[in-house]
Amino acid sequence: MTAEHPARRPGGRTARVRAAVHQAVIDLLHEEGWDDLNVALVAERSGVHQTTIYRRWGTLAGLIDDVVTERLTRSSPVPDTGTLRGDLEAYALQVADDVSGPLGPVFVRAAMIGTRDGEETTPRQIYLLERAVQLQAMLDRARDRGENPPTLLELMEIVQAPLYFHAIFFGRPAGTDHTLTLVDRLLALTGKS
Amino acid sequence: MTAEHPARRPGGRTARVRAAVHQAVIDLLHEEGWDDLNVALVAERSGVHQTTIYRRWGTLAGLIDDVVTERLTRSSPVPDTGTLRGDLEAYALQVADDVSGPLGPVFVRAAMIGTRDGEETTPRQIYLLERAVQLQAMLDRARDRGENPPTLLELMEIVQAPLYFHAIFFGRPAGTDHTLTLVDRLLALTGKS
Repeated sequence: MTAEHPARRPGGRTARVRAAVHQAVIDLLHEEGWDDLNVALVAERSGVHQTTIYRRWGTLAGLIDDVVTERLTRSSPVPDTGTLRGDLEAYALQVADDVSGPLGPVFVRAAMIGTRDGEETTPRQIYLLERAVQLQAMLDRARDRGENPPTLLELMEIVQAPLYFHAIFFGRPAGTDHTLTLVDRLLALTGKS
Repeated sequence: MTAEHPARRPGGRTARVRAAVHQAVIDLLHEEGWDDLNVALVAERSGVHQTTIYRRWGTLAGLIDDVVTERLTRSSPVPDTGTLRGDLEAYALQVADDVSGPLGPVFVRAAMIGTRDGEETTPRQIYLLERAVQLQAMLDRARDRGENPPTLLELMEIVQAPLYFHAIFFGRPAGTDHTLTLVDRLLALTGKS
């Protein structure tokens, strides 16, 4: 019922504009691909005026950054299954899904946009920092339960990096079995299995 | 002396045009960055006519692909040090250097251009296949010496992927010590150290 009748609040129109523009970006990326995306097309598809888009997001890169950040935040809560292995497996499958779906290349490209030299900190960079804090908390919960978790860097290098590598260079998903093998490797390396 | 007096051969002018255009691309990427690169700028800088560039490379993406392929091929011969560890360490340091130098983001972006859906096989994809064959030969040499090498996939996932991940997401080199730690990890995982 809350979902059907969200509370009215200041910013409701702003939120609707954001949702329409985000959906237009996602639809256009599915239909047209990255190279043909531009602010004029997004404006036409969303019904939101170009000047509004430029005022709010600055550039197309800023808009993409916001779309990716919002979707990552929404689609991938950090797991809390009660066991280290359960958390790591759920997290690995999430990452595999994020980077291998239709929007996978968008996520990776957006990540690269976010790391251009000399730019100020983007919302996506802030998200990545928040995400790192959440993942560290997931590992800390394992330690608090008496388990012996890997470091965050080990998790990123041994599980996350290969999943991105598969998506970028092999252009296809790592697959569920192989994704779980990466978790086995992480636990074996850090002496927990 | 051979370097100073290269043999004249058919294609000499073609090779000079290619070298001039490649150098212009590299200079412009250093000076202007990726977003401002276009064929008109490359033509102006190289002194090679735009129509020649379009006739030879088709698109800017095709040109970038050729530049990256040529530089990767030239700069990174697959090591043959006589030991598995020696080969793996030399290779890991090469990769770290390739992706962390001023052209690192160019390599990674070019790799992504090479994996767009629906495009025909690019010179870079062919290079990557050749490269995979060379790396497999490096691992086979270790086996022939009586060593017990990892698989090519293990090498890519455990050493190469984290190095790319550092370059893309952390925006800074993994560093020599850490790069060698990745080799230790590979050898530990595959039971060879």
